[in-house]
Amino acid sequence: MNRINYDDALQGALDTLRAEGRYRVFAELERQQGAYPTAKRYIDGVLDDTITVWCSNDYLGMGQHPKVLEAMHTALEVTGAGSGGTRNISGTHHYHIELERELADLHQKEAALLFTSGYVANEATLSSLARILKGCVIFSDEMNHASMIEGIRHGGGPKRIFRHNDLEHLEELLADSDPSVPKVVAFESVYSMDGDIADIGAICDLAKKYNALTYLDEVHAVGLYGQRGGGIADRDDVLDKVDIIEGTLAKGFGVMGGYIAASARIVDVVRSYAQSFIFTTSLSPVLAAGVLASVRHLKASRAERDAQQMQAAKLKADLKARGLPVLDTPSHIVPVMVWDPVACKAISDRLLEAHNIYVQPINYPTVPRGTERLRFTPGPFHDDGKIAALVDALDQVFSEFKIDRSRAA
Amino acid sequence: MNRINYDDALQGALDTLRAEGRYRVFAELERQQGAYPTAKRYIDGVLDDTITVWCSNDYLGMGQHPKVLEAMHTALEVTGAGSGGTRNISGTHHYHIELERELADLHQKEAALLFTSGYVANEATLSSLARILKGCVIFSDEMNHASMIEGIRHGGGPKRIFRHNDLEHLEELLADSDPSVPKVVAFESVYSMDGDIADIGAICDLAKKYNALTYLDEVHAVGLYGQRGGGIADRDDVLDKVDIIEGTLAKGFGVMGGYIAASARIVDVVRSYAQSFIFTTSLSPVLAAGVLASVRHLKASRAERDAQQMQAAKLKADLKARGLPVLDTPSHIVPVMVWDPVACKAISDRLLEAHNIYVQPINYPTVPRGTERLRFTPGPFHDDGKIAALVDALDQVFSEFKIDRSRAA
Repeated sequence: MNRINYDDALQGALDTLRAEGRYRVFAELERQQGAYPTAKRYIDGVLDDTITVWCSNDYLGMGQHPKVLEAMHTALEVTGAGSGGTRNISGTHHYHIELERELADLHQKEAALLFTSGYVANEATLSSLARILKGCVIFSDEMNHASMIEGIRHGGGPKRIFRHNDLEHLEELLADSDPSVPKVVAFESVYSMDGDIADIGAICDLAKKYNALTYLDEVHAVGLYGQRGGGIADRDDVLDKVDIIEGTLAKGFGVMGGYIAASARIVDVVRSYAQSFIFTTSLSPVLAAGVLASVRHLKASRAERDAQQMQAAKLKADLKARGLPVLDTPSHIVPVMVWDPVACKAISDRLLEAHNIYVQPINYPTVPRGTERLRFTPGPFHDDGKIAALVDALDQVFSEFKIDRSRAA
Repeated sequence: MNRINYDDALQGALDTLRAEGRYRVFAELERQQGAYPTAKRYIDGVLDDTITVWCSNDYLGMGQHPKVLEAMHTALEVTGAGSGGTRNISGTHHYHIELERELADLHQKEAALLFTSGYVANEATLSSLARILKGCVIFSDEMNHASMIEGIRHGGGPKRIFRHNDLEHLEELLADSDPSVPKVVAFESVYSMDGDIADIGAICDLAKKYNALTYLDEVHAVGLYGQRGGGIADRDDVLDKVDIIEGTLAKGFGVMGGYIAASARIVDVVRSYAQSFIFTTSLSPVLAAGVLASVRHLKASRAERDAQQMQAAKLKADLKARGLPVLDTPSHIVPVMVWDPVACKAISDRLLEAHNIYVQPINYPTVPRGTERLRFTPGPFHDDGKIAALVDALDQVFSEFKIDRSRAA
C-alpha cells in the first residue's frame, strides 16, 4: 500500500514558497495609540525597538481618532464585547442598523449591509448575484482583488476578464455576449498596488448601454475621496450610476469590517441568500460603534483627506528628486519599484534593521512576477520629518543594493 | 431583444422566501452590559421594550465579563481601534501572537491561527487542505455546518458524505476508497441545532486506521467543556487524537473571530495558502485582547461551565414536567420542537410580543423542513426566575396555538 505521508506533502508546499523567495514572515508589532504611525516591534515575542510604519492601510490614522476610541469605550460599557449571534439569531444590534443607515446615506443608496470583512463582502455579494441571476455573466477587470475573483468563482457562473481599465476591450466583450443573459461588470476605483484610478462614469455608461449591473469595489477610496468621503464615485459625482458599491471599515475608517451599499432590493437578496453572511456571528457592536463615529467624522471633515493628499504628493516629489523609481500615481498610494523579489525583501529588511522603517515587500502573488515593489502609504501623521527620514534611508539603501535607477517606473 | 429586468429577477428570489414562510426579519436589539441576558428592543429604529434573550450564543455571558471589558478598554488605549492591515502587511500585532499561543496551549497543539470568523476558519482551512493535498477526499458528516460545506466545495475536490455520527457508514466509505489518496474526516463535536455530541475518540481511531487526517469543529464547545474549556476533545481527553481543531471566539469566549489549532506545519500551510486569510485585514487587536482575557479566565475557572450545565438541566427538566416537546440533549442546547415553520414563527412572535421573551424560530435551511423548532441556550445568567417565566410563557403559548404535545421530541 502506498501510504500518504501528510508531513511530506505539506512540507513540499512550504518548500515551494521558500524556493521562490515568497515565504512570508510576519512582522510582530504593537501600534502606539496617540503616536501612530509609530509602533513597537517584537522579535520572537520579545520587545525590540520603536519603528515607523509606512505600509498601513489605516490611511488616515482614524484607528486612533479620539471620537472613534470614545465611541468604542462607550459601546463596551453599554452593550459589551460581542454581538452574541448571527444577524438573524440575536445578533442584530441597534449599532448595526445605525451604521447601515449611515453607510447607505454616504453612498446615496437605499440600503447597506455589514459583513465581518471586505473580503467576505465581495465574496458573498458576487457569489450570490451569480447564483440568483441565472446564467449571469460577470465581466471582471483583470486586476480585481482576490476576494472578487473568489466570489465570482464561488458563484459558479461564466466570467469574462477585460484588460485593466480598458473600456474598448470591455465593450468588445459586452457586445459579443447574449443580450438576454444577466450581466454584472465588476471593477475597483483605486487599485491597491498600482494606485491608478478607474473612470467609473464611463464604465457605468458602457454597462448601462448593454444592460449590465455595475459592482464597484471602493475599499481603497472610502473615507479618502469625495466631498463626504464617499470614495471616487462621490468625488466624480457618479454615485447614482453605480448599482452596488462595496467598501471596507478597516482602511480609511480605521476599524474592521466590510459592507455593500445598493438598492433595498439588492441588499435584501444578499442578506437573505449569502451563506457567508447568514452563518456568521455579526460584527462586534463595539466595532460598529467605532466605525459609526469614524464615518460621521469624515463626512463632515476634509482635513484628514487634504493632509493625506499633501503628504502623498510631497513624498512622491521628494522620491523623484532623488531619482528613485516611484510610480507617478493619481492616488495616495506610492509604489517604489524594485522589479525583483529577493532584492525587494532584502531592501525591506535593511530599512527595518538599519533605519527602523517598516515597509513590507510586495511580491507575487499580490503583484505579477517581475513587478515587485515597496508600497508606501503616507497619511496625515507621516509628517515632513518622517518623509525626509524615509527618503534619505531609501536613497542610501537603493545605492547599497545597486538598484538601477535609470529604468522608468 | 429580450432585456433582463433585474428588479423582477431579484424580487422573484425574495418572493420565494416569503411564499415558503422563511423570509427572515431581524430583531433589533441592544444588549445591556451588566444585565445580560437582558436587552433593549427597537422597532423600526425606535426603542420599545426590555426583553430577555434566550437564543444568544454568548453561552457563558463572557461578553460582559469585567476582565474581558477591561482588557479591551486597555488595548484601545494602548494600540487603537483596528489592526491597519493584513497579517502580512503591518497587521500582525503582539496581541495576535499572544492569543495564538494561548489557543495552541488550550488545545495542546504546536500552533494556532486566527481568522476574522469561525466561518472563514472553516472555509479557509478545508479549501486549502483540499487544494494542497492533491486528490484529497473529504469525508464529511451530513450535519456539518454550512461553512464546512462551503470550504469543501471551494476546495474543488471529491467528497463523501457519511450519515450523521454513523461510524459504520464512515468506515464503509473509508474502506471503499483508494488507500493511496489523501483523506480528511471533517466533523463537529456539539451539533448546534440538535445539541448531540460526536464520539471524537472513536471517529479519530477510525480515521487513523485508514490514514486520514481529522478536522474537528468545536465552535459550540470551546470554553464550555473540558477541564480548561478546551471543548469536548478536552473533556474526553482525546486532544492528541485530533489533527486540526477549529473554534470560535464569538460564542463561549464572548467576543468575535475564529481559529484553528494544529501542528506548526499545518498552520503554516494554511497561513501561507488560504486566500481568505491572506487577503483580509486581521482581527482588531482590541478583540484579540478581549479574547485573550476570556480564554485565560475560562482555563482557570469552571464556575461558568458548571452554572451553565446546571441551568440547562433545570430548563430541560422543567419543560419536560409541563409536557413540552423538548429534545433530551446531552449538551447545553435546549431545542423545543414545533415541526412547522409557520407555527414556529408565530410562537416566537407571541413570546416576544406578549411575554418579552426573545427566541428566534429555527426554520429551513438551518434545520431540515418539518423539524422546525425553538432553540434555547440557557447560561449562568439565566437564573431560576427567568427559567420559571420562560416555562410558564411557553406552556401558555403552546396551548394557545394548540401544538400537539403527545408527539415524541
